[in-house]
This record gives sequence, structure tokens and C-alpha cells, in this order.
Amino acid sequence: MRRFVLIGQTASASGDFSLEDLPSTSGRLDVLLRAIRAALLISHGLRRDVQVFLVLRGSVTSSRILRVDGRTAKFLRPDERSLATLVRKTLLALPTPGPSFSEVRPGLELRTGDITELLAEVGSSPCYLLDEAAPDVRQQAFSSDDAWFFIGDHLGFDVVTLALLERHGATRISVGPTSLHSDDVVTLVSNELDRRFTKPASELA
Amino acid sequence: MRRFVLIGQTASASGDFSLEDLPSTSGRLDVLLRAIRAALLISHGLRRDVQVFLVLRGSVTSSRILRVDGRTAKFLRPDERSLATLVRKTLLALPTPGPSFSEVRPGLELRTGDITELLAEVGSSPCYLLDEAAPDVRQQAFSSDDAWFFIGDHLGFDVVTLALLERHGATRISVGPTSLHSDDVVTLVSNELDRRFTKPASELA
Repeated sequence: MRRFVLIGQTASASGDFSLEDLPSTSGRLDVLLRAIRAALLISHGLRRDVQVFLVLRGSVTSSRILRVDGRTAKFLRPDERSLATLVRKTLLALPTPGPSFSEVRPGLELRTGDITELLAEVGSSPCYLLDEAAPDVRQQAFSSDDAWFFIGDHLGFDVVTLALLERHGATRISVGPTSLHSDDVVTLVSNELDRRFTKPASELA
Repeated sequence: MRRFVLIGQTASASGDFSLEDLPSTSGRLDVLLRAIRAALLISHGLRRDVQVFLVLRGSVTSSRILRVDGRTAKFLRPDERSLATLVRKTLLALPTPGPSFSEVRPGLELRTGDITELLAEVGSSPCYLLDEAAPDVRQQAFSSDDAWFFIGDHLGFDVVTLALLERHGATRISVGPTSLHSDDVVTLVSNELDRRFTKPASELA
């Protein structure tokens, strides 16, 4: 299972935002929505072996984590408005989530929590932190694609999150010389894992 | 100059679509809008050395080409609704474009035309066709990133377009073992070119 964690420094956790102006009203939740598409949706299909975790730190007193699980997700469409609508309904349906994941819609689960709770879930699994100055993902040895990838939003990581990831032993990797949007980073990591662990359709016959 | 051409088999050329339901009302123009973001927008910036051409074959009697020019574009934002609004205004402002590019908004130009007209513009420049069964882009020699890349939408290429590209001598390349969305393909080609031709920021000081 590939797991992508996106840290939304200001992203709305309440669902109280406008579909007509997502960037301004949702604390840039749009950045994270595009990462859901990049992680889970492929041409005419859905990656069943991927989970996406959005850490939503905006608009509520305690952070929440939205998990989108490729094994059980339904009705995921690639356009941003459809994804925003689905996430908004999920957040509004459970205004006071508990401390463990609760499924609100197929494959969309919600809990309170932040990076500390996620790192407890990571345990001893391989764990990577996307950092522009780090060694190239193409040079990184992966024993399998059972791994966690932590990616910042348009504001990057805060020092506390970085320190916690560092203490957990996350390996820093980068995806190239240009500073890219979060969804492009997800696409590039996914492609590298596909090249290592996915057989082309032509060889599966 | 990197040039990405996206073929929108059914994409609206009239601007007569709803921002509330882009996929259903615009002939899947949303697929192409996401490719604009992937080609032109990077973290807190815009790629000045990139042009995107959308071939819009839907909703009008003759195809149109929308060119987004990184050298002159302004007000490009990454969220899909903003991009849709900008493209819609451009299409509505010039309902009967002529046979050469005319700038409607900063960096957004419109003309009638299709693949034949674009191939005339390609001339003898390096020209690539993205094809899942082709050799890997990572093995492709590029003498510079002054090149054209032709990419299909969710419907792929039609046989006429393929034949014209073939006759022009386009080189087939692929980006990995998984069949991906058009915007992911743009991201992966851009990354490969960045790795060959872009110096990391740390080396530019």
C-alpha cells in the first residue's frame, strides 16, 4: 500500500467553504484536492493500492485527518469541483469526529489528529519526506511500494512537523531540480514506484 | 521553447459551458485545463519557456486552437475553476477567430485550425508523440528542450491525427507502465526535460 500524506497548513477542516472560490475560502484546500486526483486516479481507473491522508489544520481548533482509501473509494471523479463537493459533504457530515477513523462516505474517513497520530500509524514502515534539497528519488532504493510519503502544501512544512518526521527517521528525497506543486510531486513519486513495481499492461496478458 | 499540444476530441471551442459542471457540459475541457496547469505553473511561479496548445474539436463546425504562451501569460491560477473562467472568457470574446493566432487576453491566443496547421508550425523542430507502447522517455536523447509534444485526451488520438503525426515523422515516447491522465503525462515529460536542461536553484547562485 502506497500512502501519501499532504499537510494542509491552512486547509479547511470544517467544510465551510465556497465551491465558487475554493482557493480563497478553503485555505487552499484546492492544492490538496489536486493531490487526491494525482494519487488515486489513472486513465479510466482508480489505484486500489493507494491511500491519501489530508492533514487539515485550518478553521477548527484541533486538526483533522481525512483519509481517502483506494480500496473502498467510489464516485471519485478527477475534476476539482467534484472532489471539492465530495470532501465538503464528508466534512459537513461529521462536524465532531472522534480520535479514530470513521467512514463517512465510501472510502472517505475522518478523525481528529495530526502528524503525531499519523506517525504512530506509520510505525516501522518505510517513511519518506519530500524535500527539494534531498537526494533524487531515482537513486533511492525501495524494497517495495509499501511506504509512506509526506508532502508539504504551497506553504511547505512547518518546523514542528519537520522535527517530528526527522525524529521518526523519515528519509528525505526529491523529485528534480524544479520546485513543483504538491500534485506534481505525487505524480512523480507514483511514476517512480510504477516503474519499480508495476508490470506494463502488455506483460500482464 | 517547450510546446505541449493537447488534442481535445470533444472539448468545447465555443465557451458555451457551465462552470458548475465542466466535465459534462464542456466536452471534457477539464482534462485540458489540468494540462495547462501541469505545463505552465510551478511552485509560486510560471514557466516562461513553455507554450500550451489546446486543439478544441467540440461544439463548432471547424476546430479551433487555443494557445497559452508562458512568455506573456498573466493571471494564470492553478485551480480548475479559475482556468475554466479564463478560457471561457477567451472563447466567448472571439466567436469567429481567423486563420492565425490573435491575442484575446494576455498570453491567450485563438485561431481556427487543427493538427495540420500545427504541424506546419512545427516544421523541422523535434516532435514527439506520447504513446503508451513506445520506448521510454528516459532513454530518449534530447539535444535541447526546444521541442513539440503531442498528447491525447481521455479518448486518446484518432487515426487521422495519428497518421498525420506519423507522416510528419513524430517520435513515439512513453512515460511509464501505467496509463495516466493527460496532465500527469505533461508533468512527467516536463520533469524529464527539467532534469536534462534545468539547473537546480542551488547551483544558480
